[in-house]
Amino acid sequence: MLPAPVEQLITELSKLPGIGRRSAQRIAFHLLRRPREETQQLAQAIVDVKERIRFCERCFNYSEEELCSFCRDARRDQSLICVVEEPNDIIPIEKGGDYRGLYHVLGGALSPLDGVDPEHLRIRELLARVGEGGVEEVIIATNPNTSGESTALYIADLLREKVKVTRLASGLPVGADLEYADEATVSRALSGRREL
Amino acid sequence: MLPAPVEQLITELSKLPGIGRRSAQRIAFHLLRRPREETQQLAQAIVDVKERIRFCERCFNYSEEELCSFCRDARRDQSLICVVEEPNDIIPIEKGGDYRGLYHVLGGALSPLDGVDPEHLRIRELLARVGEGGVEEVIIATNPNTSGESTALYIADLLREKVKVTRLASGLPVGADLEYADEATVSRALSGRREL
Repeated sequence: MLPAPVEQLITELSKLPGIGRRSAQRIAFHLLRRPREETQQLAQAIVDVKERIRFCERCFNYSEEELCSFCRDARRDQSLICVVEEPNDIIPIEKGGDYRGLYHVLGGALSPLDGVDPEHLRIRELLARVGEGGVEEVIIATNPNTSGESTALYIADLLREKVKVTRLASGLPVGADLEYADEATVSRALSGRREL
Repeated sequence: MLPAPVEQLITELSKLPGIGRRSAQRIAFHLLRRPREETQQLAQAIVDVKERIRFCERCFNYSEEELCSFCRDARRDQSLICVVEEPNDIIPIEKGGDYRGLYHVLGGALSPLDGVDPEHLRIRELLARVGEGGVEEVIIATNPNTSGESTALYIADLLREKVKVTRLASGLPVGADLEYADEATVSRALSGRREL
């Protein structure tokens, strides 16, 4: 019913996260109505992001240059490394504004059932960074779920002898309602309780 | 904080309907993770849709050729024209599966406050189509809102002498709950009541 190029665009848009067939259709018709320069900018931005972005050679964050903006920034605390699963996990930590150290992006979390073993993550590279010296603390900020926790434990076992290893606190989110919190979170908040 | 090409992509994605900054960020990081061929297909689909799609010369629906698939289809009832505001309004009508006539896409609805006057819509072209003869009924399927209604009345006044002009029924949607229907819809459903 729809011309082939429109169908094709809807198919491609439907592959994006959070975009169903209906949203894809809405976006496709929106693009058809917009001036060509604007749609060209979107297409170019998609091409550019793949052509110009690579991994930082030290921390494996996304970067336009050999080293990412954090690794290039001499004002960041070089003795602190925060370990995250993916580059986008850096965003909420930076938004907090309290952390001034460096990062290390693993590229995922251990999940043997999905075929993700230690050699698939940048764990060796993390050990090498710590081995170079100057690092005093490694903060493990993998996700508070099964694979994130096992990744945290695995890395902690490897590093504990060489450096202080910490883990982000797990518990009730700020502003949350205890009544609606899930059991796992409440149980974690209880075991991690602090004296006031 | 994010590399410029990533920021640029997020900005472009945020311009799409229904995509906020957060969804745009999620889509951008998704594209960064996908293989280049896949993102290239998306970029190409966006470029193609603008390069290969034009307006049907007869009904102003989107088309790859001079005439759209409906206007080219000799099996469609050539004596019926359904008038819609935008090409995407054709989709729900075709999905219904009952309509077998042709279409005419106005390219919007009258809205003098927004500077949309009759000459900005394909009304002249509709009159010309009717003038060529062979059309027995024009079904006006503009949206059931203020500008859609005034567009319907405007067109009906121009065509009433030459051809039968009808309007899609307005009333309670199938499966709706009377209790939750808005007053305008109930009032329309009442005035349009039919004998059983």
